[in-house]
Amino acid sequence: MRIITVSREFGSGGRELGKRLADALGIVYYDREIILEISKNVKMDADYIESTLSRRFIVNYPYTFRSSFELIPAYPMQNSNLVAEQYKVIRTLAEKGDCVIVGRSAGVILEDYNPLKLFVYADMASKKARCRSRAPANERLSDRELVRKIKQIDKARAEAHNMIAPHSWGDKRGYNLCINTTNIAIKSIIPVIAEYAEYWFKTQEAEQEAKG
Amino acid sequence: MRIITVSREFGSGGRELGKRLADALGIVYYDREIILEISKNVKMDADYIESTLSRRFIVNYPYTFRSSFELIPAYPMQNSNLVAEQYKVIRTLAEKGDCVIVGRSAGVILEDYNPLKLFVYADMASKKARCRSRAPANERLSDRELVRKIKQIDKARAEAHNMIAPHSWGDKRGYNLCINTTNIAIKSIIPVIAEYAEYWFKTQEAEQEAKG
Repeated sequence: MRIITVSREFGSGGRELGKRLADALGIVYYDREIILEISKNVKMDADYIESTLSRRFIVNYPYTFRSSFELIPAYPMQNSNLVAEQYKVIRTLAEKGDCVIVGRSAGVILEDYNPLKLFVYADMASKKARCRSRAPANERLSDRELVRKIKQIDKARAEAHNMIAPHSWGDKRGYNLCINTTNIAIKSIIPVIAEYAEYWFKTQEAEQEAKG
Repeated sequence: MRIITVSREFGSGGRELGKRLADALGIVYYDREIILEISKNVKMDADYIESTLSRRFIVNYPYTFRSSFELIPAYPMQNSNLVAEQYKVIRTLAEKGDCVIVGRSAGVILEDYNPLKLFVYADMASKKARCRSRAPANERLSDRELVRKIKQIDKARAEAHNMIAPHSWGDKRGYNLCINTTNIAIKSIIPVIAEYAEYWFKTQEAEQEAKG
């Protein structure tokens, strides 16, 4: 089974990298599908699940911070069920075959599949620029608000990750390759990363075979 | 100017990666040459310089720890001169043209050349195995001694680096690509890393041209 997991700092282009990498390798890409699957299983609204899972640690966010990133309050009571359900869904999807999964600590959840674990990061200027370029036209965030948002989202990711992972979120020891996308066009590096992935899986498969 | 700097954890195969990468790209590789150049300039023994520069922070090392890694005591009085001389030598060598430089915080010293900065790391089991495989036949280190040595050398590297660098040694923000060599044959990933380097330099050069 060839599984690639992509963890990323908000605004680093990790999602784009994951999507393009899946296309380049001709394998499935899972992102929103995970939420939809959970939604089906627990019979709750997908958007609500998404917000709760990805922002469950952000509870003191100012109400005046209105934008495309508007936050729905977290409901800690339902968190643990959703987290457990997410775990189950990720395992089930992985069982179906080769794929790229972005976020959701999939690298930890699927550790026993020996996935190729990527971490994508960038400096703040670069992340700000990426967020601006993909923001909806009606978004009005000051520079300070944007930086704050980026940090808050990453903080929530880190906290969720650190509850289940042996290494902290973003700690390079937890990943096979850490890619700094500062001044990098994601599209251009896809062939190289795809080649690295091919090499990685070949090596792992050879090792498996050697073990019998 | 195309400059690649390789920082690495002891035993991660970073030196091998640097050497092979230079060969693959057909550019010069600097390592021992830096020491020889300093030696010529300051008229001091090369081995003494090497030991002083790379181990200057290890002063309480047990005398009984005898092996191929036997330590020469650090002489702090002469350190600052040697560090300054090393800085000068690295700048001078870089001026000569495209190269790969391993260690010595060259990525920081040459920051204005916009080098491709690699960090090579691995888990402890993998580093131990690499050290064993390349150790002289007469080396007799217990497992505990070996781990201690690896940690001590990296600690010295970190301390030397952190005195001049904006990010801590090994902090991924200070590098463009961090490569985990656990279960990896260095040789096999060279073509991919070389390709990444080619892409990196093309991008940087395009940006330079765009700026005029």
